[in-house]
Amino acid sequence: MDSSYNFLFDLALILLCTKLLGLATKKVNMPQVVGALVAGLLLGPACFKLIQPTTFISNCAEIGVIVLMFCAGMETDIEELKKSGKASFLIALIGVIVPLVGGLGIAYIFNKQGMISSNATCSILLQNIFIGIILTATSVSITVETLKEMGKLKTKSGNAILGAAIIDDILGIIALTIVTSLADPTVSITMVLLKIVAFFIFVAVVAVSFFFIYNKKYIKVKKGLHRHAILAFVFCLLLSYIGEVVFGVADITGAFFAGLIISKTQRTKFLASKFDTLSYLFLSPIFFASIGLKVEIKSMSAMIVIFAVILTLVAILTKIIGCGLGAKVCGYENYQCLRIGVGMISRGEVALIVADKGFKLGLLGANFLAPVVIMVVVTTIITPILLKVVFNNGPTHHVSSSESIAKGYEEIHHYRVGN
Amino acid sequence: MDSSYNFLFDLALILLCTKLLGLATKKVNMPQVVGALVAGLLLGPACFKLIQPTTFISNCAEIGVIVLMFCAGMETDIEELKKSGKASFLIALIGVIVPLVGGLGIAYIFNKQGMISSNATCSILLQNIFIGIILTATSVSITVETLKEMGKLKTKSGNAILGAAIIDDILGIIALTIVTSLADPTVSITMVLLKIVAFFIFVAVVAVSFFFIYNKKYIKVKKGLHRHAILAFVFCLLLSYIGEVVFGVADITGAFFAGLIISKTQRTKFLASKFDTLSYLFLSPIFFASIGLKVEIKSMSAMIVIFAVILTLVAILTKIIGCGLGAKVCGYENYQCLRIGVGMISRGEVALIVADKGFKLGLLGANFLAPVVIMVVVTTIITPILLKVVFNNGPTHHVSSSESIAKGYEEIHHYRVGN
Repeated sequence: MDSSYNFLFDLALILLCTKLLGLATKKVNMPQVVGALVAGLLLGPACFKLIQPTTFISNCAEIGVIVLMFCAGMETDIEELKKSGKASFLIALIGVIVPLVGGLGIAYIFNKQGMISSNATCSILLQNIFIGIILTATSVSITVETLKEMGKLKTKSGNAILGAAIIDDILGIIALTIVTSLADPTVSITMVLLKIVAFFIFVAVVAVSFFFIYNKKYIKVKKGLHRHAILAFVFCLLLSYIGEVVFGVADITGAFFAGLIISKTQRTKFLASKFDTLSYLFLSPIFFASIGLKVEIKSMSAMIVIFAVILTLVAILTKIIGCGLGAKVCGYENYQCLRIGVGMISRGEVALIVADKGFKLGLLGANFLAPVVIMVVVTTIITPILLKVVFNNGPTHHVSSSESIAKGYEEIHHYRVGN
Repeated sequence: MDSSYNFLFDLALILLCTKLLGLATKKVNMPQVVGALVAGLLLGPACFKLIQPTTFISNCAEIGVIVLMFCAGMETDIEELKKSGKASFLIALIGVIVPLVGGLGIAYIFNKQGMISSNATCSILLQNIFIGIILTATSVSITVETLKEMGKLKTKSGNAILGAAIIDDILGIIALTIVTSLADPTVSITMVLLKIVAFFIFVAVVAVSFFFIYNKKYIKVKKGLHRHAILAFVFCLLLSYIGEVVFGVADITGAFFAGLIISKTQRTKFLASKFDTLSYLFLSPIFFASIGLKVEIKSMSAMIVIFAVILTLVAILTKIIGCGLGAKVCGYENYQCLRIGVGMISRGEVALIVADKGFKLGLLGANFLAPVVIMVVVTTIITPILLKVVFNNGPTHHVSSSESIAKGYEEIHHYRVGN
């Protein structure tokens, strides 16, 4: 009987520690997200072992990241994204290729006797490519949260990062699926690519139908606010679920597009405030803590430690170089290239999901899981810190009209959110 | 991989169906809670079998009922409760004795050869008493939700119901623990009673310390709103957890007292609006649906069906008579006695928890679980319907100053909440 109530204690501990450490990191001018991640590390098996990861925590964390991406979608300016569409694509593309090559390179140096793999059927080349694939995955949620906190999400760099992260996500999924399909003969590459195309057709059809139904209904139910929020949430969950299960696209990609579609219904401000409450009061502390909770520091050989350090450095540098190069090609200023590159460093849960998949398929050995986790944690913790540095040190750029509106909105947001 | 995302689909389905059926019941002037319960019945094993109860759903439901009771605590007027304290105690006491005797009576008639029990070590008398114990447990959350929806929570009857339900809860726990302790030699009655007394001393100490710390801190952190909501939530979760695990009192009792203590910090309106969002957008639909999800209609013999019908009738009548009698003794008007009696009918999750405990101890046979579940569902569904009837049909009573303030508040609440 007693043990079945542990989830209440876990939840209380997560909320308390993420908030207290978040406030502490805020005190030293770091984003609260860093505190929340450290809280997870301290509570989890890596340190005080106070909380065991449970299905409840992982499910709430998943809904947490879905709601975060849904809010990001709602707050994305589609017009602005259209303008930065081509740029975002180039940033994402070069930002995927450089880490892929970098990961492949260091894996080639370290993986002499197929020591990464625990599965004899996988070729060493495939294992090395897989390390590269892990490095391609950008987790934009922490960047989004940090930029939101700083009031910089709706800047030109912020939009480029968001757009590039979405495309990066898709490119990463394609790359992952190709490699896993080579390891597993039951998955067909053509099918995967068709499914991704089908997903976008599906989203377009849903968007058009949604506008049609909503605009017709909207006239009738003007004051029904509760049901709007609930139906928006249902829409977000269904698109996430369908994206993941039917089309094999990440659920957070579905959530993001749900937010984009909803953002056109004019109720966004009301909805955003409701989902903001749901997020900060319950879901997002669980999500950020859960990342830290996954880390397990076991006895590691000197080789593995060296590999972890180099993997982390390569992960940071290849994203800055790759995405920065992409931005430079598109005519961004140097300080903007740096901001975009830094915004794409964070690997977060995406890389963990990828690593987990590879681990199950035998593409990644058990002893190489720890370096990947260390790389993910360091890139995740370092991203908000570096973002703060590069966004504060850039030149005082002239503010465009859309940016000044965005700034005003962010100020309202900040006032509402408090701390 | 696919099946691990089912919780997203479950959640979407629960939110959608509870809202749609809630709106439908609202259309025919019934509380939305009824629709939400029916949604659970339809989705669960009793009907379309679309959703399997999972740990995730049951944990979220538990947090949902905790937040509901926390909000009820925050909205309770302690001054008003003090006034109705003696009345509440008498209402609860007679409202526990009458159903206990009624349950014992019908169990005596039906339970001839110890057919209720699946455990030979339990005496028939103990089994019969246990049926009585199940009938004592009042689940006030549905009444609270209904009265809130109707804007009648802060009336004299509403306060009496809330107060009586809290005391009823404690009396029920004492009765349950005594019976289970007789079935299980490892539990000591004295210890149980001491623990309940200790819980109230603990709550008093916490309340005093909380006011002291809060009032000191309050001066420093005037604008920190986020952290207030999160710390309030942590406080609520910890008091629920400690109440349940350390003192053996129900977690919802702990949550209710956490709300009462928080209500004295003047931030109640802000906090209530935040927890209201968390509740309606995510947690409470899961809670109400989860009750319906627990129902399983298996092949039942004619005897069991007759027993179910009579058990349900006895459950309804004994609470109306018992609590009504208690209210009458305390000098309430007849229409108020009826309202209070009706408000206490609902058994909800408390009776299910009690039945589950008895089932595990062999005090309740497997074939008698279905009648208990039917009784719970019928009393839960019928309570809001009857509440609506008795609150609308009473005399137009003169409004006291505190009630008119409460009414104003409820109107604001209604406006804010929308539908």
